[in-house]
Amino acid sequence: MRELSIGVDMGGTTLKIAVVRGIEIVRRAEPVNTRECSTSQELINCLAERLRILRELYPEVCAVGMGLPGFVDHARGMVDSLTNVPGWYDVPIRKILEEASGLPTSVENDANCMAYAEWKLGAAQGMNDVVCLTLGTGVGAGVVSNGQLLRGSMGAAGEIGQVSIDYRGRIGHYGNRGAVEDYIGNNELMREAKVLYAASRGKVPMEMETPIHLESAAKAGCPVAQALWDDAARKLAACLLNCHYILNPQAFVIGGGISKAGELLFSPLRRYLQAQIYPVHFAKLQILLAQLGSEAGIIGAARLALDELPQE
Amino acid sequence: MRELSIGVDMGGTTLKIAVVRGIEIVRRAEPVNTRECSTSQELINCLAERLRILRELYPEVCAVGMGLPGFVDHARGMVDSLTNVPGWYDVPIRKILEEASGLPTSVENDANCMAYAEWKLGAAQGMNDVVCLTLGTGVGAGVVSNGQLLRGSMGAAGEIGQVSIDYRGRIGHYGNRGAVEDYIGNNELMREAKVLYAASRGKVPMEMETPIHLESAAKAGCPVAQALWDDAARKLAACLLNCHYILNPQAFVIGGGISKAGELLFSPLRRYLQAQIYPVHFAKLQILLAQLGSEAGIIGAARLALDELPQE
Repeated sequence: MRELSIGVDMGGTTLKIAVVRGIEIVRRAEPVNTRECSTSQELINCLAERLRILRELYPEVCAVGMGLPGFVDHARGMVDSLTNVPGWYDVPIRKILEEASGLPTSVENDANCMAYAEWKLGAAQGMNDVVCLTLGTGVGAGVVSNGQLLRGSMGAAGEIGQVSIDYRGRIGHYGNRGAVEDYIGNNELMREAKVLYAASRGKVPMEMETPIHLESAAKAGCPVAQALWDDAARKLAACLLNCHYILNPQAFVIGGGISKAGELLFSPLRRYLQAQIYPVHFAKLQILLAQLGSEAGIIGAARLALDELPQE
Repeated sequence: MRELSIGVDMGGTTLKIAVVRGIEIVRRAEPVNTRECSTSQELINCLAERLRILRELYPEVCAVGMGLPGFVDHARGMVDSLTNVPGWYDVPIRKILEEASGLPTSVENDANCMAYAEWKLGAAQGMNDVVCLTLGTGVGAGVVSNGQLLRGSMGAAGEIGQVSIDYRGRIGHYGNRGAVEDYIGNNELMREAKVLYAASRGKVPMEMETPIHLESAAKAGCPVAQALWDDAARKLAACLLNCHYILNPQAFVIGGGISKAGELLFSPLRRYLQAQIYPVHFAKLQILLAQLGSEAGIIGAARLALDELPQE
């Protein structure tokens, strides 16, 4: 009965650790504030300590899975580099965690863990070709292609947030122009809102700091906010079109904070996709809401670790 | 000794049929002018006749592979629709050819056949993750991902020519905006050349009808032509960036008429890619010339058919 494993989800600010059974979080360890750790070694020490505690509490735990925000070489068990966390270059994280925990360990990109969870246990169960996205501060994603998590030649596949929607567009994180996350990430969306409200002569809503305010304003009938959601859908559609023409998935599974806008986003998104995809293909393409919410990363990391254990 | 098979490559104007051994064209049948066939049935009859002749000449031929320009459902052996050839909807082409030839038959998208040839017998041999493109009137492509030809959920993966480089761009074949082939296809390139030459005060070269003229002009130092190649490279780079961020291939293999411009295209292409890809990944990314030329489609179709025969 190998059903308990430890999932670790490293974000830009918090490291979450828990014992997981399926989609159930059985027991959480105290999270680690990653910003309080000045080196990768310090963070690894905090994590190792918590792994030991959880293992003592649940000796039947049989694997550890960790998702990290950046380029992770799953096959070699290495962190190549992390996107917004300095000091992580060529870290043999799998070996370190196996020594610390005494358990077989898998490491993977965090968005790939999210996608893995939605694929194995969430909205995309049973599908062979699916793209799972999470829309928040950035656009994270993982791709399942031909019944396998798509990793590419250096473990860097599925970086859908970096897909360009404008070859002359803004310069992004890697010098690349027009990356979709530089248009529809939380901060960009709110920056755009400020510009449009300043330019409009309409009444500016009292609060306009987060996409939730933008959502309320649109639902209350504000044309500026409605136009912003339509525009975000148009840009997201361009990104999904590129995924469609390259990967031809049967579904897009969309989660993350911005997806909570629901039909404000999804209704124009379907319209833009329908207008730009061969009708027979559009008819079979599913646009689905993610099911596992903010725990998808930790659930997916834990499940991946279980699935990669040698056959009993 | 299963080494001889028949490859069939259907283009917009010509149907080519040949007995193939590896990359060698052993014997060609008389090509069929597809425009002289008013129905799909008529074309299939012409093809069936040639298959019978080739089989009589080479009784050791053991399979038939056919590439078609459009959406082909390889698993079901169906043509869903063809891009520029009317009258081909839901045609059970594999079954028809098997009955006509008496041989096991595989059908596939034509650009996928080209990619398959480059992967199995050309520039991409031994690679697990590669994108093969052919730049001509359109931009055709096939993707090998994780050691398999990427087909997607409806056999429509790898349509790299439809990748958008501008979400507000020109409206293309499927209503989709900014498709790269609408910018760097032969005809678009020459249309752009005419506009730029008309706007420039420089001397217009005597002949300016095909990319070969544009190539000669650039090599002779004409700044308008050089700028056009640089611009084409910039647009192609945006498309390849999208492939890179989604698929993370180890190589791009590039063929077709426009690729003959050589360093006029490849030098700025490498520069635009280098500026927009994480350095560690760019360092490992190969940009290669296709090796099999205009026979790649027929060679790939023939090889695919052999590889799909049941094990002896």
